[in-house]
Amino acid sequence: MTSTPVRRALRPSGRLLPEDTRRHHRALLLQLLFRYGPASRADLARSSGLTKVSVSDVVGDLLAEGLLTEAVATAQGRVGKPPVLVSLAEGSRQVVAVDLSADGLVSGALLNLSGDVQERRGRPLEGRRGETAQDLVHDLVRELVGLATQPVLGIGVGTPGVVDAAGVVVDAPNLGWHGTGLAEALRHEFGLPVFVANDANTAVLGEHTFGDAGDGGLMLIRVGTGVGAGLVLEGALLHGHRSAAGEVGHVVVDPDGAACACGRRGCLETVLAAPHLRERLDAEGPAGLTAVGVQVGVVLAPVVGTLNLHELVLSGPLELLDGPLLEAVDRTIRERAMPVSGEELVVRTSALGEDVVLVGAAVLVLAGQLGVS
Amino acid sequence: MTSTPVRRALRPSGRLLPEDTRRHHRALLLQLLFRYGPASRADLARSSGLTKVSVSDVVGDLLAEGLLTEAVATAQGRVGKPPVLVSLAEGSRQVVAVDLSADGLVSGALLNLSGDVQERRGRPLEGRRGETAQDLVHDLVRELVGLATQPVLGIGVGTPGVVDAAGVVVDAPNLGWHGTGLAEALRHEFGLPVFVANDANTAVLGEHTFGDAGDGGLMLIRVGTGVGAGLVLEGALLHGHRSAAGEVGHVVVDPDGAACACGRRGCLETVLAAPHLRERLDAEGPAGLTAVGVQVGVVLAPVVGTLNLHELVLSGPLELLDGPLLEAVDRTIRERAMPVSGEELVVRTSALGEDVVLVGAAVLVLAGQLGVS
Repeated sequence: MTSTPVRRALRPSGRLLPEDTRRHHRALLLQLLFRYGPASRADLARSSGLTKVSVSDVVGDLLAEGLLTEAVATAQGRVGKPPVLVSLAEGSRQVVAVDLSADGLVSGALLNLSGDVQERRGRPLEGRRGETAQDLVHDLVRELVGLATQPVLGIGVGTPGVVDAAGVVVDAPNLGWHGTGLAEALRHEFGLPVFVANDANTAVLGEHTFGDAGDGGLMLIRVGTGVGAGLVLEGALLHGHRSAAGEVGHVVVDPDGAACACGRRGCLETVLAAPHLRERLDAEGPAGLTAVGVQVGVVLAPVVGTLNLHELVLSGPLELLDGPLLEAVDRTIRERAMPVSGEELVVRTSALGEDVVLVGAAVLVLAGQLGVS
Repeated sequence: MTSTPVRRALRPSGRLLPEDTRRHHRALLLQLLFRYGPASRADLARSSGLTKVSVSDVVGDLLAEGLLTEAVATAQGRVGKPPVLVSLAEGSRQVVAVDLSADGLVSGALLNLSGDVQERRGRPLEGRRGETAQDLVHDLVRELVGLATQPVLGIGVGTPGVVDAAGVVVDAPNLGWHGTGLAEALRHEFGLPVFVANDANTAVLGEHTFGDAGDGGLMLIRVGTGVGAGLVLEGALLHGHRSAAGEVGHVVVDPDGAACACGRRGCLETVLAAPHLRERLDAEGPAGLTAVGVQVGVVLAPVVGTLNLHELVLSGPLELLDGPLLEAVDRTIRERAMPVSGEELVVRTSALGEDVVLVGAAVLVLAGQLGVS
């Protein structure tokens, strides 16, 4: 250490930290409290590697903003003064979340900082497309903002289609959106931070943060009128080279298969989308779902093996996914991927059910505004 | 801003930054200079978002250590004093790199901070396994350390097998290593920082940092006596849930195919490993390589589509890989992955040729010691 005693003595004043450093420290402490629950300032210093002075300074700010609360820990046979614990004030802010992934319905909710849904509202889409569909989203957001009883931290939206980093929906054919600046328009109208992402990417964030997900690589496949996927690898959402990661729905599984909306034949979507699964179940019974599961397993084995994934989650209609289909996917992947990849692999349905996109949309806001996920 | 003028006036003293912040700033500035070349202190402040005071402080340290040099920029019709540019002193340190991926040979090199090979040495393995193979690696490292004319920044090793984060080779059957603490033993013997990684992971880092790689997702497939892969996604090496990412060699491509060393049938390795490619070429001519390329493309299309990869690089014997095989891989992936995934995809061989693992081993050290890659 080359710092002089005089300089060191000045550090307790706290405000000496540059702004970029403060932002980093703030996100670090919020993330620790979000992930591991209440902690004393000394615990936080140990876990974060920051000095006690830095911790006290940042915690002071967060208490003043109401984002943290503090309470004296209940004594548990300890000697000495019980420690003061700080914790994230889950009810201190609310998040507006919108899910555009359902067929013909725009769903919305208000959630607290723990991802609990507190209010739900919805609007039937009734064939609206383009600007009128956008107007409907604005109506729904306006209603939810009006219902809020706490400051709104931001607005999160999960939408079908490719979405770029600025929240522009590059292409969502079902909604008639092409180069639609959804985030910017909402930001302009409501003056709140807005985060927009692809619905499958949103869902995997929801599952990662508030589902039963572990710490390993996670892939979530959304099965609805279409098929998409989202991946969280090494703790972070994968975006891909052109924001198109997770587009597994249009990988060909059978070159002689049914015609796909994309113009080719036999894409994964032609066998795994919910309407096709229903037809298959009606025509062939459970054996039809098993056959689909084998096809899905063959396509996913290289992905699971290459990424050494920990969890593969199917999200969508449970009566179609949970049972013969899931079992066949699981078995086929284990047969076709390396033992080390298959051994600890978990193949399951989503713990959050159909709320997974709404909860994920809230995570977009938590991550963007507080740095937690 | 709630900071008082008195407190703010103290910031220029520099040494007030906590150690964790200094480390972060140091890595940030080194990375900017490594990636984008010489820059003035003012440029560095703009690009990094750090204050000019923080930049001057950290740059001062790095100049004192000899890691940076400074020079007055040549005037280019500018008005006023020409700026002083600082740059990474590529010759100020050397790195010892070891490549254990070749059949029967341990290769080593001394490289500078720009990844240029300055000295090469090698040792025939001559059937050595276990401890005697480890002794041979130590001999080679000793020779290279002795050849160094600058301080050695560290030792990097690319080895076959699964390697954990502590540099323990969990399992490398060809070398008879199981739970072998390669990094720890080298660290103990030479008193230098040591970084050990799987050879395909090492290779993809070399390609990413010093090859012709772009900024998008990169997958490199090493074809030798075995087949392995490494991935750099969103700028970082993918490790996977059990440090086994990239183990695509044992994904089944043909359940009725040839028996594989892993005990199953028809793994990718049974069709793509170099000895099999040679047999195929001898027996069937170029058509045999095309047939292999189609099989490889079918297995990789879901990976490329799911990850929205930018580049797929084949590394190994060019006379086998570059031609009908590469073309068939490229064509098959485009036929089977979504257009948005295929459009900007580049399928090519490695720009670094057979040096890719040595160069990657140097990158392990640069990343670990300087935070650059």
